[in-house]
Amino acid sequence: MSRDKKRALVIGGVAAGMSAASRIRRNKPDWEVTVVERGKFVSYGSCGLPYFVSDLVKDVRGLVVYSADFFRENRGIGVLLRHEATRIDLEDKLVFARDLDRSQEMKLPYDKLVICTGASPSRPSFPGIELKNIFVIRTAEDGVALKTFIKQEGPRKVAIIGAGLIGLEMAEAFKAQGLEVTMIKRPGSILKMFDDDMAAKVEAELKDKGVELIKNAIIQGFEGGVDGRVKAVALADRSLEVDFILLATGASPNSSQAKEAGLKVNSNGTIAVDERMQTSNPEVFAAGDCVGQNHFVTGKEVYIPRGTTANKQGRVAGENASGGNDVFEGVVGTAVSKIFDLTVARTGLSSAEAAKEGYDFMTSKVAHPSHGHTYPNPPPEDITVKLVVEKPTGKLLGAQMIGKMGVAKRIDVFATALQNGMTVDDITRLDLSYSPPFAPFWDSILVAANVALRKLAR
Amino acid sequence: MSRDKKRALVIGGVAAGMSAASRIRRNKPDWEVTVVERGKFVSYGSCGLPYFVSDLVKDVRGLVVYSADFFRENRGIGVLLRHEATRIDLEDKLVFARDLDRSQEMKLPYDKLVICTGASPSRPSFPGIELKNIFVIRTAEDGVALKTFIKQEGPRKVAIIGAGLIGLEMAEAFKAQGLEVTMIKRPGSILKMFDDDMAAKVEAELKDKGVELIKNAIIQGFEGGVDGRVKAVALADRSLEVDFILLATGASPNSSQAKEAGLKVNSNGTIAVDERMQTSNPEVFAAGDCVGQNHFVTGKEVYIPRGTTANKQGRVAGENASGGNDVFEGVVGTAVSKIFDLTVARTGLSSAEAAKEGYDFMTSKVAHPSHGHTYPNPPPEDITVKLVVEKPTGKLLGAQMIGKMGVAKRIDVFATALQNGMTVDDITRLDLSYSPPFAPFWDSILVAANVALRKLAR
Repeated sequence: MSRDKKRALVIGGVAAGMSAASRIRRNKPDWEVTVVERGKFVSYGSCGLPYFVSDLVKDVRGLVVYSADFFRENRGIGVLLRHEATRIDLEDKLVFARDLDRSQEMKLPYDKLVICTGASPSRPSFPGIELKNIFVIRTAEDGVALKTFIKQEGPRKVAIIGAGLIGLEMAEAFKAQGLEVTMIKRPGSILKMFDDDMAAKVEAELKDKGVELIKNAIIQGFEGGVDGRVKAVALADRSLEVDFILLATGASPNSSQAKEAGLKVNSNGTIAVDERMQTSNPEVFAAGDCVGQNHFVTGKEVYIPRGTTANKQGRVAGENASGGNDVFEGVVGTAVSKIFDLTVARTGLSSAEAAKEGYDFMTSKVAHPSHGHTYPNPPPEDITVKLVVEKPTGKLLGAQMIGKMGVAKRIDVFATALQNGMTVDDITRLDLSYSPPFAPFWDSILVAANVALRKLAR
Repeated sequence: MSRDKKRALVIGGVAAGMSAASRIRRNKPDWEVTVVERGKFVSYGSCGLPYFVSDLVKDVRGLVVYSADFFRENRGIGVLLRHEATRIDLEDKLVFARDLDRSQEMKLPYDKLVICTGASPSRPSFPGIELKNIFVIRTAEDGVALKTFIKQEGPRKVAIIGAGLIGLEMAEAFKAQGLEVTMIKRPGSILKMFDDDMAAKVEAELKDKGVELIKNAIIQGFEGGVDGRVKAVALADRSLEVDFILLATGASPNSSQAKEAGLKVNSNGTIAVDERMQTSNPEVFAAGDCVGQNHFVTGKEVYIPRGTTANKQGRVAGENASGGNDVFEGVVGTAVSKIFDLTVARTGLSSAEAAKEGYDFMTSKVAHPSHGHTYPNPPPEDITVKLVVEKPTGKLLGAQMIGKMGVAKRIDVFATALQNGMTVDDITRLDLSYSPPFAPFWDSILVAANVALRKLAR
């Protein structure tokens, strides 16, 4: 191999990794670009896993955007599947990797390295956590394992530990599979990225759809049978029989190799990067769920792992690793999710976050129709909009929306408003689209801003 | 009547008028507030008329937001229906009105006057324009007349003159009524608020839905039978038999009374107002389809009549007429419409508008899925996004979107971007909502901005 040809190596090929590799290839057609991916698939949307488990997507390959072969053949990117990076040597610019199928070790030299190792699901240290049939859902392989289990073993009852977005989306997926679903939540509200009054609407939806929710649960551990399979969740006051368990209690960044290599790692476990996605070593970049983000509203570093963010960061990392100059400026914490018949969406700061950051803020809440009553096909449904507003300035700090239709892309208007530092007065002046099939005269966005403005004036 | 009690008079009670009256009432509980409305209904959405004619809305009262009785009883606002204001006397602060049912004249004194006389549909001066069964669609009464005609006379063939949003929405309504529909468009492209390549998609949809479109038509006149009913449209090369005609060739502001009274009227026929909606007479305000708007992008006065704008302007006029101080800052020309299975949306400047304004601009166009391929329920459909971008600055000047789903509220992100003077580079950095049921990883908004950015860099 000639050393004239520069080598770019990317660890991890899900979202950030493939974006980085593609951008390097685009900028440097003559470089050797290689991606090392632990799993069997690259470039897939893990956010689609609930729809694979529910069987809306039949084959796991349906989650893949572009296959490894596509990258190899159409983009000239080397993809090593089922290869796990085990160690990074910054001094000699080497990554040690293991071929998981052949148990062979190899050394991969690099000129530029992009670390996109993602995050791993948290595994709480409950007694019995090592039992069989305790699943997580993060990678395509996790999804395959879970769906295969459901299809082959025909379980009836599942307990989901945790009640965040992923747990809730999985509750719907399991219900679609005809399972009895119990969600178990430790003390504190469900869906904690939303205010309690908004999360209460999701609780009502769970109840309506026959999902049992055990709140304020103190899990003592998991109980197993002689076959080593989990058979119950031991709570403080009772034992809940289950056929399997899904752990959905969050994820933490995969940064141990980076740390061991001597790269700077933050106290929350994210690999430290600047806005160019450059780590403490100038030849090494990192992107995706293993790094944090600047929050546009607070100006502080946060850890809000998202597929979109990973894609954007990967592209910036790839750009800078291949001689360009781009920055990833940050996030506003936008999220949307379908939970049974509800769409829940949020951006910016919740009340709890605003309080924690010490803002002098107020909130306002309205319910307003999704579209005009003169287009009753289907009839409009109320959208509940809650705004978090800084009192002295009237600046929007955050927005939350819940409804049955018309929620998803409306939240993006608030996300755009946040990124521009708009006040609620500014928002009332937006010239938003109107036609009965899509919006009432006064869009719920404008009504929410008007109500907040009046409340501020009091 | 004691002169201690101030009198606010509003002419016109559709959108702007009722917003103005309501705001005055809120600010001044002790004032006498009266609305004079020529028609039988107040506070209705004329944008819902196509859905009334299609029969999705059975009763015309289904278009009404609040009835006249609601305003009388719940808001203490006097509403004179079927009363037409005939003359404004600025010196004596009087409005002369006629009770249309009793043919009685009356004088209505005011301390503050708000003129919300709306607009009237254009009636081209074709020979035969006076024939029977030539309809327009603007007021609730127009809708009733048209629907009654269809139900009672059972016509088979209609010609729509004009191919703007209203004409196109009505084509769908007539098709829903089982009619043969021919749209007749004078030379020039249909849907001229869109670029030709975007309008072509709408033409294809019309063809697909069995609507005949005659473009570049030179209408010689309308031909009638001995019964005085229209029976054909005379074109240059042929005579098109019809049972009735709908004129949909735009509307012009109703400002003749204002002009006769001595108020300043602009050359395009709009009543001149400042951003407080105050006319050239300090006691008189005007709002809605009878006035123009400032365009945020160009900073110039435009005439873009819209229900939402009318509501906002009415509120500002009412606020200032009752001692407050608010401004209506302007519009960006946002519009959305459902045309058969397509949603068409636009905001800001089209290519033609940007050229006319002398901008040094470029355009870019992409087609990108409405949502994630991992949520195929229903499967995603491409959204075509066209951006108009100022070359030297990279600032967004306008956006157009056409697709079968996910268009309506996405256009609002561009509208918000325009109002904040964002560049396409800024737009690529937006933290937009992502989840497979609602968006792909890279939202079509971001993809469009990225493509424009790359094209700019060339």
